[in-house]
Amino acid sequence: MTTETTSTAAQPATAAAADIVTDHDLGIHGYHHQKDEHVKRLRRIEGQIRGLQRMVEEDTYCIDILTQVSASTKALQSFALQLLEEHLRHCVADAALKGGNEIDEKVEEATKAIARMMRT
Amino acid sequence: MTTETTSTAAQPATAAAADIVTDHDLGIHGYHHQKDEHVKRLRRIEGQIRGLQRMVEEDTYCIDILTQVSASTKALQSFALQLLEEHLRHCVADAALKGGNEIDEKVEEATKAIARMMRT
Amino acid sequence: MTTETTSTAAQPATAAAADIVTDHDLGIHGYHHQKDEHVKRLRRIEGQIRGLQRMVEEDTYCIDILTQVSASTKALQSFALQLLEEHLRHCVADAALKGGNEIDEKVEEATKAIARMMRT
Amino acid sequence: MTTETTSTAAQPATAAAADIVTDHDLGIHGYHHQKDEHVKRLRRIEGQIRGLQRMVEEDTYCIDILTQVSASTKALQSFALQLLEEHLRHCVADAALKGGNEIDEKVEEATKAIARMMRT
Repeated sequence: MTTETTSTAAQPATAAAADIVTDHDLGIHGYHHQKDEHVKRLRRIEGQIRGLQRMVEEDTYCIDILTQVSASTKALQSFALQLLEEHLRHCVADAALKGGNEIDEKVEEATKAIARMMRT
Repeated sequence: MTTETTSTAAQPATAAAADIVTDHDLGIHGYHHQKDEHVKRLRRIEGQIRGLQRMVEEDTYCIDILTQVSASTKALQSFALQLLEEHLRHCVADAALKGGNEIDEKVEEATKAIARMMRT
Repeated sequence: MTTETTSTAAQPATAAAADIVTDHDLGIHGYHHQKDEHVKRLRRIEGQIRGLQRMVEEDTYCIDILTQVSASTKALQSFALQLLEEHLRHCVADAALKGGNEIDEKVEEATKAIARMMRT
Repeated sequence: MTTETTSTAAQPATAAAADIVTDHDLGIHGYHHQKDEHVKRLRRIEGQIRGLQRMVEEDTYCIDILTQVSASTKALQSFALQLLEEHLRHCVADAALKGGNEIDEKVEEATKAIARMMRT
Protein backbone atom coordinates (compact mmCIF):
# COMPACT_ATOMS: atom_id res chain seq x y z
CA MET A 1 0.00 0.00 0.00
CA THR A 2 1.83 3.13 -1.18
CA THR A 3 0.56 6.65 -0.82
CA GLU A 4 2.41 8.61 -3.49
CA THR A 5 1.49 12.16 -4.30
CA THR A 6 2.78 14.45 -7.03
CA SER A 7 1.53 17.56 -5.33
CA THR A 8 4.25 19.64 -3.67
CA ALA A 9 1.81 22.27 -2.40
CA ALA A 10 1.56 22.98 1.32
CA GLN A 11 -0.70 20.52 3.10
CA PRO A 12 -2.71 21.62 6.10
CA ALA A 13 -2.43 19.21 9.00
CA THR A 14 -5.94 17.81 8.53
CA ALA A 15 -5.37 16.92 4.90
CA ALA A 16 -1.94 15.43 5.40
CA ALA A 17 -3.09 11.82 5.36
CA ALA A 18 -2.23 11.31 1.71
CA ASP A 19 1.37 12.35 2.27
CA ILE A 20 2.24 10.45 5.39
CA VAL A 21 4.04 7.25 4.46
CA THR A 22 4.21 5.15 7.59
CA ASP A 23 6.13 1.96 8.34
CA HIS A 24 2.78 0.28 8.04
CA ASP A 25 2.38 1.41 4.45
CA LEU A 26 5.71 -0.21 3.74
CA GLY A 27 4.54 -3.52 5.13
CA ILE A 28 6.54 -3.11 8.32
CA HIS A 29 4.29 -4.03 11.22
CA GLY A 30 4.57 -2.98 14.82
CA TYR A 31 6.28 -6.15 15.88
CA HIS A 32 8.84 -6.08 13.07
CA HIS A 33 11.79 -4.97 15.14
CA GLN A 34 11.21 -7.62 17.81
CA LYS A 35 10.84 -10.49 15.33
CA ASP A 36 13.76 -12.55 16.64
CA GLU A 37 12.60 -12.14 20.21
CA HIS A 38 9.07 -13.22 19.25
CA VAL A 39 10.26 -16.32 17.41
CA LYS A 40 12.45 -17.28 20.41
CA ARG A 41 9.49 -16.86 22.75
CA LEU A 42 7.30 -19.04 20.53
CA ARG A 43 10.02 -21.72 20.37
CA ARG A 44 10.05 -21.82 24.16
CA ILE A 45 6.25 -22.25 24.14
CA GLU A 46 6.60 -25.02 21.54
CA GLY A 47 9.04 -26.72 23.93
CA GLN A 48 6.49 -26.42 26.74
CA ILE A 49 3.85 -28.12 24.57
CA ARG A 50 6.25 -30.96 23.80
CA GLY A 51 6.90 -31.20 27.54
CA LEU A 52 3.15 -31.62 28.03
CA GLN A 53 3.14 -34.54 25.59
CA ARG A 54 5.89 -36.24 27.59
CA MET A 55 3.99 -35.64 30.83
CA VAL A 56 0.89 -37.34 29.39
CA GLU A 57 2.96 -40.23 28.02
CA GLU A 58 4.71 -40.72 31.38
CA ASP A 59 1.40 -40.73 33.32
CA THR A 60 2.21 -37.57 35.25
CA TYR A 61 -0.33 -36.62 37.91
CA CYS A 62 -3.29 -34.73 36.37
CA ILE A 63 -2.89 -31.62 38.52
CA ASP A 64 0.79 -31.26 37.60
CA ILE A 65 -0.15 -31.37 33.92
CA LEU A 66 -2.81 -28.69 34.53
CA THR A 67 -0.18 -26.49 36.21
CA GLN A 68 2.01 -26.80 33.12
CA VAL A 69 -0.96 -26.04 30.82
CA SER A 70 -1.58 -22.85 32.81
CA ALA A 71 2.08 -21.86 32.40
CA SER A 72 1.86 -22.37 28.61
CA THR A 73 -1.41 -20.44 28.36
CA LYS A 74 0.13 -17.61 30.39
CA ALA A 75 3.16 -17.53 28.08
CA LEU A 76 0.87 -17.33 25.02
CA GLN A 77 -1.19 -14.54 26.61
CA SER A 78 1.97 -12.66 27.47
CA PHE A 79 3.19 -12.97 23.86
CA ALA A 80 -0.21 -11.74 22.65
CA LEU A 81 -0.05 -8.74 25.00
CA GLN A 82 3.38 -7.72 23.72
CA LEU A 83 2.20 -8.04 20.12
CA LEU A 84 -0.89 -5.99 20.95
CA GLU A 85 1.18 -3.28 22.64
CA GLU A 86 3.37 -2.94 19.54
CA HIS A 87 0.28 -2.95 17.33
CA LEU A 88 -1.32 -0.13 19.32
CA ARG A 89 1.93 1.86 19.37
CA HIS A 90 2.52 1.57 15.65
CA CYS A 91 -0.51 0.57 13.59
CA VAL A 92 -3.18 2.31 15.68
CA ALA A 93 -1.05 5.41 16.23
CA ASP A 94 -0.33 5.54 12.46
CA ALA A 95 -4.05 5.44 11.76
CA ALA A 96 -4.59 8.35 14.16
CA LEU A 97 -1.95 10.41 12.36
CA LYS A 98 -3.50 9.68 8.98
CA GLY A 99 -6.85 10.98 10.13
CA GLY A 100 -10.09 9.92 8.53
CA ASN A 101 -12.01 6.77 9.37
CA GLU A 102 -9.02 4.47 9.61
CA ILE A 103 -8.58 5.06 13.34
CA ASP A 104 -12.16 3.88 13.99
CA GLU A 105 -11.63 0.74 11.95
CA LYS A 106 -8.27 -0.04 13.57
CA VAL A 107 -9.60 0.51 17.10
CA GLU A 108 -12.66 -1.64 16.43
CA GLU A 109 -10.44 -4.37 15.00
CA ALA A 110 -8.05 -4.20 17.98
CA THR A 111 -10.94 -4.27 20.48
CA LYS A 112 -12.37 -7.37 18.81
CA ALA A 113 -8.96 -9.06 19.07
CA ILE A 114 -8.78 -8.13 22.78
CA ALA A 115 -12.30 -9.55 23.30
CA ARG A 116 -11.21 -12.84 21.68
CA MET A 117 -8.14 -12.95 23.95
CA MET A 118 -10.27 -12.33 27.04
CA ARG A 119 -12.76 -15.04 26.18
CA THR A 120 -10.09 -17.71 26.03
CA MET B 1 -14.29 15.65 18.24
CA THR B 2 -12.90 19.01 17.21
CA THR B 3 -9.59 20.32 18.43
CA GLU B 4 -9.88 24.11 18.35
CA THR B 5 -6.93 26.28 19.18
CA THR B 6 -6.79 30.03 19.69
CA SER B 7 -4.16 30.34 17.02
CA THR B 8 -5.55 30.76 13.51
CA ALA B 9 -2.11 30.55 11.89
CA ALA B 10 -1.20 27.53 9.77
CA GLN B 11 0.07 24.66 11.95
CA PRO B 12 2.64 22.31 10.57
CA ALA B 13 1.61 18.82 11.56
CA THR B 14 4.81 17.93 13.34
CA ALA B 15 5.09 21.01 15.54
CA ALA B 16 1.45 21.18 16.50
CA ALA B 17 1.67 19.14 19.73
CA ALA B 18 1.99 22.10 22.07
CA ASP B 19 -0.99 23.86 20.49
CA ILE B 20 -3.46 21.01 20.15
CA VAL B 21 -6.01 21.20 22.92
CA THR B 22 -7.89 17.94 22.92
CA ASP B 23 -11.08 16.95 24.69
CA HIS B 24 -8.80 15.02 26.96
CA ASP B 25 -7.02 18.18 28.05
CA LEU B 26 -10.41 19.60 28.94
CA GLY B 27 -11.15 16.63 31.18
CA ILE B 28 -13.55 15.08 28.67
CA HIS B 29 -12.74 11.40 28.44
CA GLY B 30 -13.48 9.00 25.64
CA TYR B 31 -16.54 7.56 27.32
CA HIS B 32 -18.04 11.00 28.07
CA HIS B 33 -20.69 10.93 25.39
CA GLN B 34 -21.93 7.45 26.39
CA LYS B 35 -22.15 8.26 30.10
CA ASP B 36 -25.91 7.62 30.42
CA GLU B 37 -25.62 4.33 28.58
CA HIS B 38 -22.72 3.26 30.83
CA VAL B 39 -24.59 4.11 34.03
CA LYS B 40 -27.64 2.17 32.80
CA ARG B 41 -25.45 -0.84 32.02
CA LEU B 42 -23.87 -0.72 35.48
CA ARG B 43 -27.32 -0.46 37.11
CA ARG B 44 -28.32 -3.65 35.30
CA ILE B 45 -25.17 -5.36 36.61
CA GLU B 46 -25.97 -4.08 40.12
CA GLY B 47 -29.40 -5.70 39.74
CA GLN B 48 -27.74 -8.97 38.73
CA ILE B 49 -25.57 -8.90 41.87
CA ARG B 50 -28.66 -8.34 44.04
CA GLY B 51 -30.27 -11.25 42.20
CA LEU B 52 -27.28 -13.39 43.22
CA GLN B 53 -27.85 -12.46 46.88
CA ARG B 54 -31.46 -13.61 46.60
CA MET B 55 -30.35 -16.86 44.96
CA VAL B 56 -27.98 -17.60 47.86
CA GLU B 57 -30.64 -16.69 50.43
CA GLU B 58 -33.19 -18.93 48.73
CA ASP B 59 -30.78 -21.92 48.58
CA THR B 60 -30.68 -22.01 44.79
CA TYR B 61 -28.71 -24.91 43.31
CA CYS B 62 -24.94 -24.15 43.25
CA ILE B 63 -24.55 -24.58 39.48
CA ASP B 64 -27.41 -22.17 38.73
CA ILE B 65 -25.71 -19.54 40.89
CA LEU B 66 -22.43 -20.13 39.03
CA THR B 67 -24.24 -19.61 35.71
CA GLN B 68 -25.53 -16.27 36.95
CA VAL B 69 -22.06 -15.28 38.22
CA SER B 70 -20.69 -16.00 34.72
CA ALA B 71 -23.39 -13.77 33.21
CA SER B 72 -22.47 -10.91 35.55
CA THR B 73 -18.76 -11.32 34.91
CA LYS B 74 -19.44 -11.31 31.16
CA ALA B 75 -21.50 -8.12 31.49
CA LEU B 76 -18.65 -6.44 33.40
CA GLN B 77 -16.09 -7.56 30.81
CA SER B 78 -18.31 -6.27 28.02
CA PHE B 79 -18.61 -2.90 29.79
CA ALA B 80 -14.82 -2.82 30.20
CA LEU B 81 -14.31 -3.58 26.50
CA GLN B 82 -16.59 -0.71 25.45
CA LEU B 83 -14.78 1.67 27.79
CA LEU B 84 -11.44 0.48 26.44
CA GLU B 85 -12.55 0.94 22.83
CA GLU B 86 -13.57 4.53 23.54
CA HIS B 87 -10.32 5.10 25.42
CA LEU B 88 -8.25 3.85 22.47
CA ARG B 89 -10.29 5.88 19.99
CA HIS B 90 -10.01 9.11 21.94
CA CYS B 91 -7.26 9.19 24.54
CA VAL B 92 -4.71 7.03 22.73
CA ALA B 93 -5.43 8.60 19.35
CA ASP B 94 -5.08 12.09 20.93
CA ALA B 95 -1.68 11.09 22.29
CA ALA B 96 -0.61 9.96 18.82
CA LEU B 97 -1.63 13.33 17.35
CA LYS B 98 0.26 15.24 20.03
CA GLY B 99 3.44 13.35 19.20
CA GLY B 100 6.27 12.97 21.68
CA ASN B 101 6.45 10.31 24.35
CA GLU B 102 2.81 10.47 25.39
CA ILE B 103 1.75 7.77 22.93
CA ASP B 104 4.23 5.32 24.48
CA GLU B 105 2.99 6.07 27.98
CA LYS B 106 -0.67 5.79 26.98
CA VAL B 107 -0.17 2.53 25.09
CA GLU B 108 1.81 1.02 27.99
CA GLU B 109 -0.92 2.09 30.42
CA ALA B 110 -3.69 0.66 28.20
CA THR B 111 -1.79 -2.63 27.73
CA LYS B 112 -1.40 -2.99 31.50
CA ALA B 113 -5.15 -2.44 31.91
CA ILE B 114 -5.84 -5.11 29.26
CA ALA B 115 -3.46 -7.49 31.06
CA ARG B 116 -5.38 -6.94 34.32
CA MET B 117 -8.67 -7.61 32.53
CA MET B 118 -7.31 -10.81 30.99
CA ARG B 119 -6.04 -12.15 34.29
CA THR B 120 -9.44 -11.93 35.96
CA MET C 1 -21.85 -34.32 56.94
CA THR C 2 -23.43 -37.55 58.10
CA THR C 3 -25.15 -39.94 55.77
CA GLU C 4 -27.92 -41.51 57.84
CA THR C 5 -30.16 -44.17 56.40
CA THR C 6 -33.37 -45.54 57.82
CA SER C 7 -32.32 -49.06 57.01
CA THR C 8 -30.19 -50.79 59.65
CA ALA C 9 -29.52 -53.79 57.44
CA ALA C 10 -26.08 -54.32 55.96
CA GLN C 11 -25.63 -52.29 52.79
CA PRO C 12 -23.68 -53.77 49.94
CA ALA C 13 -21.62 -51.06 48.34
CA THR C 14 -23.15 -51.24 44.91
CA ALA C 15 -26.79 -51.19 45.98
CA ALA C 16 -26.47 -48.43 48.57
CA ALA C 17 -27.35 -45.55 46.26
CA ALA C 18 -31.09 -45.70 46.77
CA ASP C 19 -30.79 -45.65 50.54
CA ILE C 20 -28.26 -42.93 51.09
CA VAL C 21 -30.04 -39.71 51.93
CA THR C 22 -27.57 -36.90 51.61
CA ASP C 23 -27.81 -33.24 52.60
CA HIS C 24 -28.25 -32.65 48.92
CA ASP C 25 -31.40 -34.77 48.84
CA LEU C 26 -32.74 -32.59 51.63
CA GLY C 27 -32.19 -29.45 49.58
CA ILE C 28 -29.12 -28.43 51.60
CA HIS C 29 -26.45 -27.41 49.13
CA GLY C 30 -22.72 -27.29 49.62
CA TYR C 31 -22.66 -23.56 50.28
CA HIS C 32 -25.48 -23.70 52.84
CA HIS C 33 -23.31 -23.27 55.91
CA GLN C 34 -21.47 -20.27 54.46
CA LYS C 35 -24.64 -18.44 53.39
CA ASP C 36 -24.10 -15.36 55.53
CA GLU C 37 -20.53 -15.02 54.40
CA HIS C 38 -21.59 -15.35 50.74
CA VAL C 39 -24.30 -12.70 51.06
CA LYS C 40 -21.81 -10.33 52.74
CA ARG C 41 -19.31 -10.90 49.92
CA LEU C 42 -21.99 -10.18 47.30
CA ARG C 43 -23.02 -6.99 49.14
CA ARG C 44 -19.43 -5.79 48.95
CA ILE C 45 -19.41 -6.50 45.20
CA GLU C 46 -22.74 -4.63 44.86
CA GLY C 47 -21.04 -1.69 46.59
CA GLN C 48 -18.16 -1.89 44.10
CA ILE C 49 -20.62 -1.73 41.18
CA ARG C 50 -22.29 1.35 42.69
CA GLY C 51 -18.80 2.81 43.08
CA LEU C 52 -18.29 2.25 39.33
CA GLN C 53 -21.48 4.21 38.59
CA ARG C 54 -20.18 7.16 40.64
CA MET C 55 -16.83 6.97 38.83
CA VAL C 56 -18.57 7.21 35.44
CA GLU C 57 -20.80 10.06 36.64
CA GLU C 58 -17.81 11.98 38.01
CA ASP C 59 -15.82 11.57 34.75
CA THR C 60 -13.09 9.49 36.34
CA TYR C 61 -10.18 8.65 34.05
CA CYS C 62 -10.99 5.61 31.84
CA ILE C 63 -8.03 3.51 33.03
CA ASP C 64 -8.95 4.00 36.70
CA ILE C 65 -12.46 2.76 35.94
CA LEU C 66 -11.01 -0.28 34.14
CA THR C 67 -8.87 -1.05 37.21
CA GLN C 68 -11.99 -1.00 39.39
CA VAL C 69 -13.87 -3.23 36.88
CA SER C 70 -11.00 -5.74 37.10
CA ALA C 71 -11.25 -5.70 40.92
CA SER C 72 -15.01 -6.39 40.74
CA THR C 73 -14.57 -9.17 38.19
CA LYS C 74 -11.87 -10.72 40.38
CA ALA C 75 -14.16 -10.57 43.42
CA LEU C 76 -16.93 -12.31 41.44
CA GLN C 77 -14.54 -14.99 40.19
CA SER C 78 -13.28 -15.55 43.72
CA PHE C 79 -16.88 -15.94 44.97
CA ALA C 80 -17.54 -18.41 42.14
CA LEU C 81 -14.44 -20.43 43.04
CA GLN C 82 -15.51 -20.73 46.69
CA LEU C 83 -18.98 -21.83 45.63
CA LEU C 84 -17.49 -24.35 43.23
CA GLU C 85 -15.14 -25.75 45.89
CA GLU C 86 -18.09 -26.32 48.25
CA HIS C 87 -20.07 -27.84 45.39
CA LEU C 88 -17.29 -30.30 44.58
CA ARG C 89 -16.79 -31.17 48.27
CA HIS C 90 -20.46 -31.82 48.92
CA CYS C 91 -22.60 -32.38 45.84
CA VAL C 92 -19.99 -34.13 43.69
CA ALA C 93 -18.65 -36.21 46.59
CA ASP C 94 -22.24 -37.20 47.48
CA ALA C 95 -22.78 -38.38 43.93
CA ALA C 96 -19.63 -40.49 44.13
CA LEU C 97 -20.86 -42.14 47.33
CA LYS C 98 -24.23 -42.90 45.79
CA GLY C 99 -22.61 -44.71 42.93
CA GLY C 100 -24.31 -45.15 39.59
CA ASN C 101 -24.36 -42.57 36.80
CA GLU C 102 -24.91 -39.55 39.00
CA ILE C 103 -21.19 -38.87 39.42
CA ASP C 104 -20.78 -38.64 35.63
CA GLU C 105 -23.68 -36.20 35.34
CA LYS C 106 -22.47 -34.06 38.24
CA VAL C 107 -18.90 -33.93 36.96
CA GLU C 108 -20.05 -33.03 33.44
CA GLU C 109 -22.29 -30.31 34.85
CA ALA C 110 -19.49 -28.92 37.03
CA THR C 111 -17.01 -28.97 34.13
CA LYS C 112 -19.44 -27.03 31.94
CA ALA C 113 -19.83 -24.44 34.71
CA ILE C 114 -16.03 -24.15 34.96
CA ALA C 115 -15.82 -23.73 31.17
CA ARG C 116 -18.35 -20.87 31.35
CA MET C 117 -16.34 -19.23 34.13
CA MET C 118 -13.12 -19.52 32.13
CA ARG C 119 -14.65 -18.01 29.01
CA THR C 120 -15.68 -14.82 30.79
CA MET D 1 -17.90 -37.01 56.90
CA THR D 2 -17.82 -40.08 59.16
CA THR D 3 -18.29 -43.59 57.86
CA GLU D 4 -19.08 -45.64 60.97
CA THR D 5 -20.34 -49.19 60.89
CA THR D 6 -21.13 -51.59 63.69
CA SER D 7 -20.52 -54.64 61.58
CA THR D 8 -17.05 -56.14 61.77
CA ALA D 9 -17.95 -58.75 59.21
CA ALA D 10 -16.71 -58.84 55.68
CA GLN D 11 -16.20 -55.34 54.35
CA PRO D 12 -19.21 -53.08 54.43
CA ALA D 13 -18.84 -50.38 51.85
CA THR D 14 -18.55 -47.56 54.36
CA ALA D 15 -15.50 -48.82 56.25
CA ALA D 16 -13.60 -50.00 53.23
CA ALA D 17 -11.26 -47.01 52.77
CA ALA D 18 -8.12 -48.87 53.75
CA ASP D 19 -8.99 -51.77 51.51
CA ILE D 20 -10.17 -50.03 48.40
CA VAL D 21 -7.45 -50.16 45.79
CA THR D 22 -8.36 -47.66 43.13
CA ASP D 23 -6.87 -47.09 39.71
CA HIS D 24 -5.29 -44.07 41.28
CA ASP D 25 -3.41 -46.16 43.81
CA LEU D 26 -2.01 -48.13 40.90
CA GLY D 27 -0.70 -44.96 39.26
CA ILE D 28 -3.43 -44.98 36.66
CA HIS D 29 -4.77 -41.45 36.46
CA GLY D 30 -8.13 -40.27 35.24
CA TYR D 31 -6.84 -39.40 31.82
CA HIS D 32 -5.06 -42.74 31.33
CA HIS D 33 -7.55 -44.24 28.94
CA GLN D 34 -7.56 -41.17 26.69
CA LYS D 35 -3.76 -40.89 26.51
CA ASP D 36 -3.50 -41.28 22.74
CA GLU D 37 -6.22 -38.74 22.15
CA HIS D 38 -4.49 -36.28 24.50
CA VAL D 39 -1.12 -36.67 22.82
CA LYS D 40 -2.75 -36.13 19.39
CA ARG D 41 -4.46 -33.00 20.66
CA LEU D 42 -1.18 -31.64 22.02
CA ARG D 43 0.59 -32.39 18.73
CA ARG D 44 -2.03 -30.30 16.93
CA ILE D 45 -1.40 -27.45 19.39
CA GLU D 46 2.36 -27.84 18.83
CA GLY D 47 1.65 -27.46 15.10
CA GLN D 48 -0.33 -24.29 15.79
CA ILE D 49 2.62 -22.82 17.73
CA ARG D 50 4.97 -23.60 14.84
CA GLY D 51 2.41 -21.92 12.55
CA LEU D 52 2.68 -18.83 14.74
CA GLN D 53 6.46 -18.80 14.29
CA ARG D 54 6.01 -18.86 10.52
CA MET D 55 3.45 -16.05 10.72
CA VAL D 56 5.91 -13.85 12.64
CA GLU D 57 8.75 -14.71 10.22
CA GLU D 58 6.57 -13.90 7.21
CA ASP D 59 5.47 -10.52 8.67
CA THR D 60 1.82 -11.50 8.92
CA TYR D 61 -0.50 -8.73 10.04
CA CYS D 62 -0.50 -8.36 13.87
CA ILE D 63 -4.25 -8.92 14.28
CA ASP D 64 -4.15 -12.17 12.27
CA ILE D 65 -1.39 -13.46 14.57
CA LEU D 66 -3.47 -12.50 17.62
CA THR D 67 -6.43 -14.46 16.20
CA GLN D 68 -4.21 -17.52 15.88
CA VAL D 69 -2.85 -17.04 19.43
CA SER D 70 -6.46 -17.00 20.69
CA ALA D 71 -7.17 -20.24 18.83
CA SER D 72 -4.12 -21.91 20.41
CA THR D 73 -5.01 -20.65 23.89
CA LYS D 74 -8.56 -21.95 23.42
CA ALA D 75 -7.24 -25.36 22.36
CA LEU D 76 -5.02 -25.50 25.46
CA GLN D 77 -7.92 -24.49 27.73
CA SER D 78 -10.12 -27.10 26.12
CA PHE D 79 -7.44 -29.78 26.71
CA ALA D 80 -7.17 -28.63 30.35
CA LEU D 81 -10.94 -28.85 30.80
CA GLN D 82 -11.03 -32.42 29.50
CA LEU D 83 -8.17 -33.40 31.80
CA LEU D 84 -9.92 -31.74 34.72
CA GLU D 85 -13.20 -33.51 33.96
CA GLU D 86 -11.43 -36.89 33.99
CA HIS D 87 -9.60 -35.92 37.18
CA LEU D 88 -12.86 -35.02 38.94
CA ARG D 89 -14.54 -38.19 37.69
CA HIS D 90 -11.76 -40.51 38.80
CA CYS D 91 -9.36 -39.03 41.34
CA VAL D 92 -11.84 -36.83 43.23
CA ALA D 93 -14.56 -39.50 43.16
CA ASP D 94 -12.02 -42.08 44.42
CA ALA D 95 -11.15 -39.82 47.32
CA ALA D 96 -14.84 -39.49 48.19
CA LEU D 97 -15.20 -43.28 48.24
CA LYS D 98 -12.15 -43.71 50.45
CA GLY D 99 -13.57 -41.32 53.03
CA GLY D 100 -11.40 -39.41 55.47
CA ASN D 101 -9.69 -36.12 54.75
CA GLU D 102 -8.53 -37.01 51.27
CA ILE D 103 -11.63 -35.59 49.59
CA ASP D 104 -10.98 -32.18 51.20
CA GLU D 105 -7.37 -32.20 50.05
CA LYS D 106 -8.26 -33.31 46.52
CA VAL D 107 -11.04 -30.72 46.16
CA GLU D 108 -8.79 -27.93 47.47
CA GLU D 109 -6.06 -29.00 45.05
CA ALA D 110 -8.49 -29.13 42.11
CA THR D 111 -9.96 -25.72 42.99
CA LYS D 112 -6.49 -24.17 43.06
CA ALA D 113 -5.78 -25.66 39.63
CA ILE D 114 -9.07 -24.19 38.33
CA ALA D 115 -8.14 -20.80 39.82
CA ARG D 116 -4.79 -20.90 37.99
CA MET D 117 -6.58 -21.78 34.72
CA MET D 118 -9.04 -18.90 35.17
CA ARG D 119 -6.30 -16.36 35.85
CA THR D 120 -4.55 -17.07 32.56
